Amino acid sequence: MYFTGILKKISITLGLAMLSTISFAQELASSELPESVMNDQRYNRAIHIMVMLLIGFGFLMVFVRKYGRSALTATFLLVSTALPLYFLIRNTGLMGVASNEIEKLILAEFGAASLLIAAGAVLGRLKMPQYILLGLLFIPAYAFNEWIVLGGGLGIIDPGSVVDVGGSIVIHAFGAIFGLGVALTMTTKQEMETTIESDATSDRYSMLGSMALWIFWPSFCAALVTPAEMPHTVVNVIFALCGSTLATYIFSISLRKKVSIADIANAALAGGVAIGSSCVVSSHTMAAIIGIMAGSVSTLGFAVIQSHQQKWMKIIDTCGVTNLHGIPGLMGGLAVLPIARGLNIGNQLLGMVITIVLALSCGFIVGKILPILGRKIEAYDDAEEFLDAEA
Amino acid sequence: MYFTGILKKISITLGLAMLSTISFAQELASSELPESVMNDQRYNRAIHIMVMLLIGFGFLMVFVRKYGRSALTATFLLVSTALPLYFLIRNTGLMGVASNEIEKLILAEFGAASLLIAAGAVLGRLKMPQYILLGLLFIPAYAFNEWIVLGGGLGIIDPGSVVDVGGSIVIHAFGAIFGLGVALTMTTKQEMETTIESDATSDRYSMLGSMALWIFWPSFCAALVTPAEMPHTVVNVIFALCGSTLATYIFSISLRKKVSIADIANAALAGGVAIGSSCVVSSHTMAAIIGIMAGSVSTLGFAVIQSHQQKWMKIIDTCGVTNLHGIPGLMGGLAVLPIARGLNIGNQLLGMVITIVLALSCGFIVGKILPILGRKIEAYDDAEEFLDAEA
Amino acid sequence: MYFTGILKKISITLGLAMLSTISFAQELASSELPESVMNDQRYNRAIHIMVMLLIGFGFLMVFVRKYGRSALTATFLLVSTALPLYFLIRNTGLMGVASNEIEKLILAEFGAASLLIAAGAVLGRLKMPQYILLGLLFIPAYAFNEWIVLGGGLGIIDPGSVVDVGGSIVIHAFGAIFGLGVALTMTTKQEMETTIESDATSDRYSMLGSMALWIFWPSFCAALVTPAEMPHTVVNVIFALCGSTLATYIFSISLRKKVSIADIANAALAGGVAIGSSCVVSSHTMAAIIGIMAGSVSTLGFAVIQSHQQKWMKIIDTCGVTNLHGIPGLMGGLAVLPIARGLNIGNQLLGMVITIVLALSCGFIVGKILPILGRKIEAYDDAEEFLDAEA
Repeated sequence: MYFTGILKKISITLGLAMLSTISFAQELASSELPESVMNDQRYNRAIHIMVMLLIGFGFLMVFVRKYGRSALTATFLLVSTALPLYFLIRNTGLMGVASNEIEKLILAEFGAASLLIAAGAVLGRLKMPQYILLGLLFIPAYAFNEWIVLGGGLGIIDPGSVVDVGGSIVIHAFGAIFGLGVALTMTTKQEMETTIESDATSDRYSMLGSMALWIFWPSFCAALVTPAEMPHTVVNVIFALCGSTLATYIFSISLRKKVSIADIANAALAGGVAIGSSCVVSSHTMAAIIGIMAGSVSTLGFAVIQSHQQKWMKIIDTCGVTNLHGIPGLMGGLAVLPIARGLNIGNQLLGMVITIVLALSCGFIVGKILPILGRKIEAYDDAEEFLDAEA
Repeated sequence: MYFTGILKKISITLGLAMLSTISFAQELASSELPESVMNDQRYNRAIHIMVMLLIGFGFLMVFVRKYGRSALTATFLLVSTALPLYFLIRNTGLMGVASNEIEKLILAEFGAASLLIAAGAVLGRLKMPQYILLGLLFIPAYAFNEWIVLGGGLGIIDPGSVVDVGGSIVIHAFGAIFGLGVALTMTTKQEMETTIESDATSDRYSMLGSMALWIFWPSFCAALVTPAEMPHTVVNVIFALCGSTLATYIFSISLRKKVSIADIANAALAGGVAIGSSCVVSSHTMAAIIGIMAGSVSTLGFAVIQSHQQKWMKIIDTCGVTNLHGIPGLMGGLAVLPIARGLNIGNQLLGMVITIVLALSCGFIVGKILPILGRKIEAYDDAEEFLDAEA
Repeated sequence: MYFTGILKKISITLGLAMLSTISFAQELASSELPESVMNDQRYNRAIHIMVMLLIGFGFLMVFVRKYGRSALTATFLLVSTALPLYFLIRNTGLMGVASNEIEKLILAEFGAASLLIAAGAVLGRLKMPQYILLGLLFIPAYAFNEWIVLGGGLGIIDPGSVVDVGGSIVIHAFGAIFGLGVALTMTTKQEMETTIESDATSDRYSMLGSMALWIFWPSFCAALVTPAEMPHTVVNVIFALCGSTLATYIFSISLRKKVSIADIANAALAGGVAIGSSCVVSSHTMAAIIGIMAGSVSTLGFAVIQSHQQKWMKIIDTCGVTNLHGIPGLMGGLAVLPIARGLNIGNQLLGMVITIVLALSCGFIVGKILPILGRKIEAYDDAEEFLDAEA
């Protein structure tokens, strides 16, 4: 009886002890950490992504010489519209169960990034209220596509079967193609003839934005990967960016005789766009190769294809998002095919097709809606909407 | 005997094992993490706040066209004076027990933030040595007020009974009102008549500072909250900032016909100021409302009230800290009243009154002391103190 | 038998439980955290260092008025060359066993930092492909020196006996002296006579770079220290930076009558350079003193010595890396002597001598090799290599 008593006592405390111990050990083993630790890790990624949204995308768009105040204000307004709206939509539960707060914040930031890409296509030709309206219309479309392609929405694609953790498809390609759709209906003749000017100061601001994006890109791609996958993932992203940066320089000088700083500021980032889908599963060497290919194709786009595209499609893509996010994004989605083991190839391709169709059609419709708020008269110029902006 | 021996052995190792297990489990349950993990989490917040201090406040103040070198150098000098001095004061033990190193660093950074706000009121009219002297005089006053209002100093207010985790009262309002006090005695007639000029480049630099503040504000407010409170807190801060950013645009265009980029760069941040006190206890919706209100009032301040205030008080508040930190800070302190459960309303109000009185009187006295180092002749101009600064 | 059965069962589960429990408790006690937690902590430092590399060093070098596009592009190319190349070298295993991915990333970033310092000495006088070639030649030399001085390479110095955790010697001094070696053979007469011009905008960009370096310097020095050492280390680095910033202002105004913003942007950082070796072992007071001394000597270098050095050595050190990284780096290596307990003084000095000799000789040779890619005709000017860069 004495023994039994002791044993019971031991067993009970032991049980309690082990409950927490074993579960913690299991968590460690399965790369899962206590929630408060996970939240903090993801919070830091979330802040890194916020740098990309505001300073990154914001200043990258300041390359338009006379439109800096507008580009930065638009960035502020787009982000401030996108984040709460995404929360609102997810909180309805209509498009998948709302996840934990920090995870939802990161997903909202992904939506804001995609929105900023879309806005880049028509930058300088919308009035401030139109950027806000663009945000209000874009985010539901974005969330819908994300839900269908990644979250199993409407039962079309098994959840998790499309490999796109860093958003090559659902963030970059979606945003760029949506922007193209808007540009298709919005571009005026006058805009086709207006030169988009930059100067030494706007170019250096633009490089600041580009560098902010480059620096924090690993956090963008690794924001929602497991702690165990993180180290391999972030090195992949960095290798892809190094590859695209070197390739951009080489292609820019080869294709143009002299280097275009716009190529450097933009195409150097194409590796980050393209590695998005495969950042976890790729090898380091493959990541570098994907980066080199993306940087090459993107530079080719900026240096050669863009002027043809504009004539052929009769649009202006102000920031060249087709070349930085569109093509490299789709490349990234395809790059998964030969790399990922046990991939459902059909679903991967179906997810890409759905993204393209939804983005283009929604963008086209939104382009028809935006003019209800009028039209900007003087393109690429702060003075129409900002005080003391003649300088 | 055999059993007893084994049992003892088991019990001892078990006891040791459980000691650490249970304590770790308890720590997790009570949202407390091992110290080294906590230190790291806070360290990242501390670095985020450092971005706010130097690039945030520093570049926000570069809006003065010809005073950029001075504004940035002053920022460097103010921070370099404030941080070690705050450590020195806290290490004396006179104003509360010195806490852990990283916590002390964060508290020191809070003091530096408040100092930069105060300096913003007289920016462009102090010589470099006067900024250093301002720092030397400000930090003891700041630490004294912090100790009384939050730390139970002199036994006036129960420690912890004033709700101000993100510093609406003791950081923002204190700094702004202190700066106002300094401006009251320092502003000359000549300064009243000098226009403060900005241009396209200084405006874009200013937006860089503003965005740096916006981005890292969640870390400012969540720097010292518990890990369990962090996710809710940071989303609150972001919602408040989104609210104030949108409200600022709407009020700026409504009140002025055209948008003022200075409104955007400044008032967009008022949500961060005002959510400081209630960032943990507020709901997301309430946080957005507080942000919208703060942004509206702040823009009204910049667009309408500031010019009247200057004539009435016969002062120049260079950066408009009254409108960005003063009013929104006090609003934030009051916003706690209807929100926080079990709040000691008397103490909350008493803390605010003490902050106002101490800040104003200390600022006034410091404004009398600073001229012992002479007076800047040419206001808002680098050339008096910097080489090659005619450009 | 019944008891024995239960006991065995208990013992086994207990054993398993304790294995993980005790090991975790031990890890905590010995300041070691689970690998996924350590990886995350270091990853955040790695990203901080990436800000220093691109925005920090990059924009600091934008002080050359007409060379901003080139300086930023060169920064991109140097970093994109250095990081993968360092991985490649370490992965061969020839120079020490390859460590964990994030640790290797940080070590690669250290190499990139040293490379950027070296490039600073000849900034504006290399063509873009020469920067890439410089990177290809520098990194193996850097890795070789790091291996010998810190990793026990060739058995000359016991591994770990040289105290240099923040890289005063192997990163800063090595890079600066290497750059000096390159400059010795590369500097042309024409370059000696060309003025390096800056203006208000380039100065403010330069201050942005400087502030980015200042802000994230604690993460640079603490990147590879233990979690238990981190808090003391980062406060030391901040105190050293505060000391050098204040000293720089005082010496700049004293030596020149008016402040040079170039002194502020550069010498303010000397404290970070000099505290590198002793950042863990120094007291806070000593850290501040080291910072003050480094800032003073560095400012003296920029204000007085640099012009003499240029005539005497017949070189141009574009960014003054001798004064910011060379002298303060060597000071930092020596500062360990009176501070560190149980230091092998002979090894510390030997490590410094090897670093100086290797850096100078390798730099000299590389300076002979670089001209095989030709020579830049117009020094300090974007227009030769960049489109639309006449502005």
